[in-house]
Amino acid sequence: MAKTVSPPELALSGRPPGRGLAGWLYSELRSAILTGRLTRGTRLPASRDFARLHGIARGTVVAVFERLQAEGYVSSRVGRGTWVNHEMLRTAAPHAAGAAPEFARRIIAGYARPKALRGLAATPPRPFQMGKPALAEFPARVWARLAARRARRLGAWLRLADDGRGYRPLREALAQHLGLTRGIHCHPDQVSLVSGTQQALDVLARFLVQPGEPVWMEDPGYFGAAVALQNAGAQLVPVPVDREGLSVAQGLEQLARPRGIYLTPAHQFPLGVAMSAARRLQVLEIASRVGAFIIEDDYDSEFRFEGRPLPALQSLDRGSTVILVGTFSKTLFPALRMGYVVMPSSLTDYFLAFQHRTQLCSVHLDQSILCDFIVEGHLGRHIRRMRNLYAGRLACLAESARRQLAGLLEIDAVRAGLYTAAYLENGMTSADAERAAFALEVDALALDRFTFKREDPRGLLLGFAAFDEKSLRQGVIQLAQALEPRTARRR
Amino acid sequence: MAKTVSPPELALSGRPPGRGLAGWLYSELRSAILTGRLTRGTRLPASRDFARLHGIARGTVVAVFERLQAEGYVSSRVGRGTWVNHEMLRTAAPHAAGAAPEFARRIIAGYARPKALRGLAATPPRPFQMGKPALAEFPARVWARLAARRARRLGAWLRLADDGRGYRPLREALAQHLGLTRGIHCHPDQVSLVSGTQQALDVLARFLVQPGEPVWMEDPGYFGAAVALQNAGAQLVPVPVDREGLSVAQGLEQLARPRGIYLTPAHQFPLGVAMSAARRLQVLEIASRVGAFIIEDDYDSEFRFEGRPLPALQSLDRGSTVILVGTFSKTLFPALRMGYVVMPSSLTDYFLAFQHRTQLCSVHLDQSILCDFIVEGHLGRHIRRMRNLYAGRLACLAESARRQLAGLLEIDAVRAGLYTAAYLENGMTSADAERAAFALEVDALALDRFTFKREDPRGLLLGFAAFDEKSLRQGVIQLAQALEPRTARRR
Repeated sequence: MAKTVSPPELALSGRPPGRGLAGWLYSELRSAILTGRLTRGTRLPASRDFARLHGIARGTVVAVFERLQAEGYVSSRVGRGTWVNHEMLRTAAPHAAGAAPEFARRIIAGYARPKALRGLAATPPRPFQMGKPALAEFPARVWARLAARRARRLGAWLRLADDGRGYRPLREALAQHLGLTRGIHCHPDQVSLVSGTQQALDVLARFLVQPGEPVWMEDPGYFGAAVALQNAGAQLVPVPVDREGLSVAQGLEQLARPRGIYLTPAHQFPLGVAMSAARRLQVLEIASRVGAFIIEDDYDSEFRFEGRPLPALQSLDRGSTVILVGTFSKTLFPALRMGYVVMPSSLTDYFLAFQHRTQLCSVHLDQSILCDFIVEGHLGRHIRRMRNLYAGRLACLAESARRQLAGLLEIDAVRAGLYTAAYLENGMTSADAERAAFALEVDALALDRFTFKREDPRGLLLGFAAFDEKSLRQGVIQLAQALEPRTARRR
Repeated sequence: MAKTVSPPELALSGRPPGRGLAGWLYSELRSAILTGRLTRGTRLPASRDFARLHGIARGTVVAVFERLQAEGYVSSRVGRGTWVNHEMLRTAAPHAAGAAPEFARRIIAGYARPKALRGLAATPPRPFQMGKPALAEFPARVWARLAARRARRLGAWLRLADDGRGYRPLREALAQHLGLTRGIHCHPDQVSLVSGTQQALDVLARFLVQPGEPVWMEDPGYFGAAVALQNAGAQLVPVPVDREGLSVAQGLEQLARPRGIYLTPAHQFPLGVAMSAARRLQVLEIASRVGAFIIEDDYDSEFRFEGRPLPALQSLDRGSTVILVGTFSKTLFPALRMGYVVMPSSLTDYFLAFQHRTQLCSVHLDQSILCDFIVEGHLGRHIRRMRNLYAGRLACLAESARRQLAGLLEIDAVRAGLYTAAYLENGMTSADAERAAFALEVDALALDRFTFKREDPRGLLLGFAAFDEKSLRQGVIQLAQALEPRTARRR
């Protein structure tokens, strides 16, 4: 027979002001059970007695007992009263706050930071950070107006059908926009909306690559793609990049039958070169011949300041080997979290099914706002404005560098993108130059961060898009100080 | 010496009306090169001659030649003219539209649809579909007002700092909300915003599991979790679910030292039972002892129509083994694409680093709207309203079923969630009942879809949240017809 709890054992701590009676009683009893003050098998006093003892309405006590019973802390049977559940265990002793449980220690032990990010610390916005476009120039009022209009229609809009690829009118507008600006031929059903380049690369790598399959990777190249491919088990085959982009001949020498090829043909990351037409045709021919896919990362392609934008590699592809990835993070703003994948038509349904395993997509309010933004001509206008702005900023950077950095650092001749590569002429390694710049509060990433097998290209990456000309000039002066030979600086 | 092209070889097709001269000429020449009409080494006429021959301004011709040169189609040197690039290759013969390239055929051959989705076709919204809450009842006007207010401040807002976990004030509001409604103890830094449950499960599985590691999985259980875990290489160990949730004793018999445990303690998917307190403590004790993680999928927990919501398993966890996953897809609307992960504090930084490899998160406008929605009390109000509404809908379904489905199908006694399990009493298998229902335009998923090893539970899942009482009653009548024994129906 279970023993009945005597009043002292059930001393309840004072009820905090404002706390409801039932909630307080429930948590007192629950805590008494969990901490073992009420051991298993212990019988609680009858609700009538309990109520009288503690000066509580009986209905409240009954409700609390029922709740404890519903949650399994106590059992009860007519005529036998209520007792602390026999199966109840004590919980483990509390860990010290923040102490890592065993499974967490395993994960921590296995963690390695990607080379591209190693030793990087967060800094306030300052030249020559790379991640952001000129957010101050974004037409936020236009966006706000479109957002408010769409939001007012949210009720009806919430019940739209959704096939998982994203808002159909946006995919139509995007297919047309890509046709006009990038020469891409695609049906809106080939377009899937995703939440940015990294998500696209991650899901594509897992969709396209089986563990152990070799994939050509530009060297130096985009580390986000390398991480995504390696996460999927790909064997990376670094292929050197020269002035015409990835060297197809060297790729063939290293591994003649890749299962896939990752490329940034419009504006190679990080060197900035555009892939030549001859190389483009070669790489398409090889992909068709060996049965490989090509991921064309079209990042940054909108911003060429000399000549016109090069059409996408996909526009030349007759073999349906190219999968195009693009993003609005740089043309509009990163917080939009919107990118797209253009898939060969034979794979669209399979890709959609695979995406559903990793992330249930749905039609999203921002998609409808972006749709209006494109259809009403704001996107084209914004890109043209930014192209002029960025061209001016790059010209300012190049001109300042010519004056201040002669013999130390030479800005590459490519006039495109939101950042530029620059090559050291002072004998420093990339890493030393990065450190020296950082010490004078200038962010200039070492090109060496983005190499796989090749030696240090001895250069820095300078982002210019997000900074006005005054900041850029000031940044160049700081950078010149950082890169001056020590002997000169000591004088 | 390269031969010069004679005029007939360069016959240009007529310029379409409205097409700019330079664009037209560029695409004609490019196409002539790509199709091989202009073979490599062929020299183009001098720009002056070319302009005269075709009646085009010389400046236009020069600009087009320069563009072709910039893109690598032609080469040019002073005194030697312009010729089609030697390295230029022919492109592969065009594939038939939609024909699958080799890499695509490999993927298609390896594709298998998850059992839970096999043979499912899309249908119009109708009882008893499960995916959606009562979208018509969502306070869309309130949301629109908050959205417009936030969108007006977009300009300043875009430049907010962002640590990758999501909008800090929302994480604070959420930590407080989870404390009040789910008994969860957490710091806002333990909360990461994600784009829904499936993304959370996918990234958690990859973060927590090494290929081949065994994970206990509820049987029957949530197929989305199974897919995510299997994608990450986990070895699933199905453990039967009974009236108290996952049977810990049977789990221990099958595999005593799992590396992880996946649970839906609040409202088991698909059976709907709540995990008993005794089982909760057992499973926590085991996880601490063997060094396993627990993923607590808190889906649906807000909607209990009898008694109060059970506190989350995480609220009992002294060993920091529980990782909680939740979503706003069911409490608010799926298109919000917003979920959250509450990580033990020892792992928050590592989890964030891992997330960056799969998806660069950023502070998102919807996050600020949701923040206002919570802080201004709309979330609590909406959940209370929906709880009443759904309780009424479930009561209506249960009452209709009692009258119409006696001897055919019995609605489970659990009063919670947006759907209910119901058990067949007419001798049909789950799959037969699903087919019969579908034939009469009623969607009722077979419980058998969600089993791993155990035998068919002979039941259906009925979603009720998104349907008004009239539709539910009509659905029950249809369902009764579908489930009646054939002999009875023939009479």
